Amino acid sequence: MSRFWSPVVSGLTPYIPGEQPKTLDLVKLNTNEHPYGPSPRALDAMRGALNDTLKLYPDPDSTRVKESAAHACGMRPEQVFVGNGSDEVLAHAFFALFQQPRPLLFPDITYSFYPVYCGLYGIDYRTVSLDEQFRVNVADYAQPNGGIVIANPNAPTGRVLALADIERLLQANTDSAVLIDEAYIDFGGASAAALIDQYPNLLVVRTLSKSYALAGLRVGFALGSEELIEGLDRVKNSFNSYPLDRVAQAGASAALDDAEWFERSRAQVIAQREALVAGLQARGFEVLPSAANFVFARHRQRDAAEIATGLRAARVIVRHFKLPRIAQFLRISVGTEPQHARLFAALDHVLGATAGVA
Amino acid sequence: MSRFWSPVVSGLTPYIPGEQPKTLDLVKLNTNEHPYGPSPRALDAMRGALNDTLKLYPDPDSTRVKESAAHACGMRPEQVFVGNGSDEVLAHAFFALFQQPRPLLFPDITYSFYPVYCGLYGIDYRTVSLDEQFRVNVADYAQPNGGIVIANPNAPTGRVLALADIERLLQANTDSAVLIDEAYIDFGGASAAALIDQYPNLLVVRTLSKSYALAGLRVGFALGSEELIEGLDRVKNSFNSYPLDRVAQAGASAALDDAEWFERSRAQVIAQREALVAGLQARGFEVLPSAANFVFARHRQRDAAEIATGLRAARVIVRHFKLPRIAQFLRISVGTEPQHARLFAALDHVLGATAGVA
Repeated sequence: MSRFWSPVVSGLTPYIPGEQPKTLDLVKLNTNEHPYGPSPRALDAMRGALNDTLKLYPDPDSTRVKESAAHACGMRPEQVFVGNGSDEVLAHAFFALFQQPRPLLFPDITYSFYPVYCGLYGIDYRTVSLDEQFRVNVADYAQPNGGIVIANPNAPTGRVLALADIERLLQANTDSAVLIDEAYIDFGGASAAALIDQYPNLLVVRTLSKSYALAGLRVGFALGSEELIEGLDRVKNSFNSYPLDRVAQAGASAALDDAEWFERSRAQVIAQREALVAGLQARGFEVLPSAANFVFARHRQRDAAEIATGLRAARVIVRHFKLPRIAQFLRISVGTEPQHARLFAALDHVLGATAGVA
Repeated sequence: MSRFWSPVVSGLTPYIPGEQPKTLDLVKLNTNEHPYGPSPRALDAMRGALNDTLKLYPDPDSTRVKESAAHACGMRPEQVFVGNGSDEVLAHAFFALFQQPRPLLFPDITYSFYPVYCGLYGIDYRTVSLDEQFRVNVADYAQPNGGIVIANPNAPTGRVLALADIERLLQANTDSAVLIDEAYIDFGGASAAALIDQYPNLLVVRTLSKSYALAGLRVGFALGSEELIEGLDRVKNSFNSYPLDRVAQAGASAALDDAEWFERSRAQVIAQREALVAGLQARGFEVLPSAANFVFARHRQRDAAEIATGLRAARVIVRHFKLPRIAQFLRISVGTEPQHARLFAALDHVLGATAGVA
C-alpha cells in the first residue's frame, strides 16, 4: 500500500500462477504444459530471426501470424487478433467488451484469472454454478448480462461443452459478447470458430501455450467478427503497438503452419491422457471426463492436500486448488510416459503410506 | 463502432507508430532504431533458449533480467520492474500511479503515447508548454497534479534536462509520482536513477529498444522504490503473469550484461550523431541540441512536408509530425555512415530541385 498508487491498485487481488520451479529435475504436472517440445520448424524459424534485424521494431500487426492462424483455423486474417499470450488477449477482450452496465457471467468454477480481470477494470460480474457433475448448463445463462465467458473445455475440470450447446447459448444471447476460451480445445471437442460467421458477438480465444507446446513463447490469438476484432485492436493500439517480438512472430507463424506436427503431437497427448486416466482409476481415483491435456481427479478415500504434499516430497508437482467444491480434487497435467511412471510410483508410495497410518 | 464494445472503446484515439516497412531496401531513419545490430552475446543467449524447454512457461518474474538490469544501473533487483517493451511498462505505470483525482502533467510536445494511455484509463491530464527553445522548465510544473511525466531526453526534440533540474522537480513535488521516461538517456545526459533512494515517488523507465539495439525483442523496465515497483507488480499480475517469453529473457539479460559492447556501441552512435548534425547544418538546417539517437531539425528555407515527401521518393524515410509548433521539423534517426550518405545525397537532390522550382 502506497500513497503514490492509484486508488484502485490497493484493492486488486492479482492472479497467482502455478509454480514455475527454476530446476528441471521435477516431474512438473502442475501448469498444463505440453509434455513434448514444439515443432522443429518453429525452432528453425526462430533461429532464422536471431540476427541484426532485431534492432528493428517488429511488425506491429503480426501480419504473418494472423495469416497462419487464419489458415490453421479456416478463417480470414481480418478475423484474427494476436497478443502476448492468451492472457493478454483475454485482458484486452475484457476491457474492450465487458465494461458494461450489466454484469458479466461466467461459471463459479473456471479459470481463476477471469475475476482478476474484472477487478482490474472494475467489471461487475456474477458467477453461475456448474451442476453437481461440474457441467455447464447453458440454460442457466439466460439472464440479463453484459457478456458471457465460458472456458471450453473448462479449467480446471477438463469437461467440454458440445458445439450445439454453444450455439444454443449464442441463439439465446444476441445482445452482448460471448467469449469462448478455447485454450484446450485441440485436445477434444469442436471449436466454436465454426459459428463466427453467423454470430457477430462471438469471440473465440486460443493459445499456442498448450497444443503447440510454446508456453515459453507467449502467443495467443482471438477469432471473431471484424467488428469485435476492431474493438480489440483499438485497445491494443492504445496499450502497446508491438505486443509480439520478431522471434515470437517467426516461431508462432511456423508452428501454426506445421499441420503435420500438430496432428501427430495432439494424438500423442490424447493417447497419454487415456493412459493417465487409467492409471489414476486403478489407484482409486474418480476422474472427470477430460477433453483437455490435464485431468481433474479426486481419490475415493484420501485427502487431496495430503496427496499433493506427498507427491511434492517425491518431486512430483500437481495443482491443488483450495477452493469450495473442488478442495478434494487434484489437477494433473498429461505428461510423458516416464513422467507418468514417476507419478504412479509416487502415488503408490503416498497412498500406501497413508493407508499404513490410517 | 459496435454495440458489443465497452462504451469507452469508441472514444479511444489509438497511438500510431512510425511506419514499419516490410522491405529492407529503404534507408529507415523514422523510428529511432539503433543503426547497428545487438550484442553478439545476446544473440548467442537467445540461440541457447531455442529448444524443447519452450514448452514450459517462462519465469513470471523475469528474475535474471531484473538482476542484470539492476547490475547495469547500480540498483537492487527489488527496485526493478520488467515489461514487454517500455510501452507496456508505461501503460502499467499510468494505470498503477496516475488514476488520480488531480490531473497528470506532461509537456505539450513529447511522446505522443502519453495522452493515449490517458484516454485508455480515463486519466485527466494537462499539458505544460515547452519554452520557445523547446526546453522543459521544471518551475512550470509547480501546480496541483496527480503525477508528472517527463521524457528525458525528450522526444521528438532530443533535448535533455540536467539531473539538477530533475532533482528540483522532485523536491517541489513530493505528493505524487514523477515518471522520467529515459528511453534515450544512454545517448546523453545523466540518469535520474541516481535519485531513487532519496525520492520514493520517482519512477525511471528504460528500454532495450534503443541503446541495446533490441527494438525487435520488446523489453523495457522501470526502476523505482520498492513501493512503486510493488504497485506495478500488482497491475502486471492482474493483467498477464508472463509478459516476457523465454527467448526475450535470455537475450535481455545477456545484452544488459555485455557492458563492453554497450559502451563501444553507444560511443559509435554518438559519433554518428555528430556527423549527422554537421551534415544537416551544412545543408541549411537548424538542428536542436540532441542527447538522443535522433535529431530534430528544421530547414531555414524549405518546407518540412515537401522535404519528407522528396526523401520518401528517394527511399529515405524520416518522421514528420504534422502538429502545432513542430510542423516545420523533421525527426531523423542516427544511421550508419552509408545511410547518412544516402540521406545527404537525397537531401541535396530534394533541396536543389526545390531551389530550381522556386
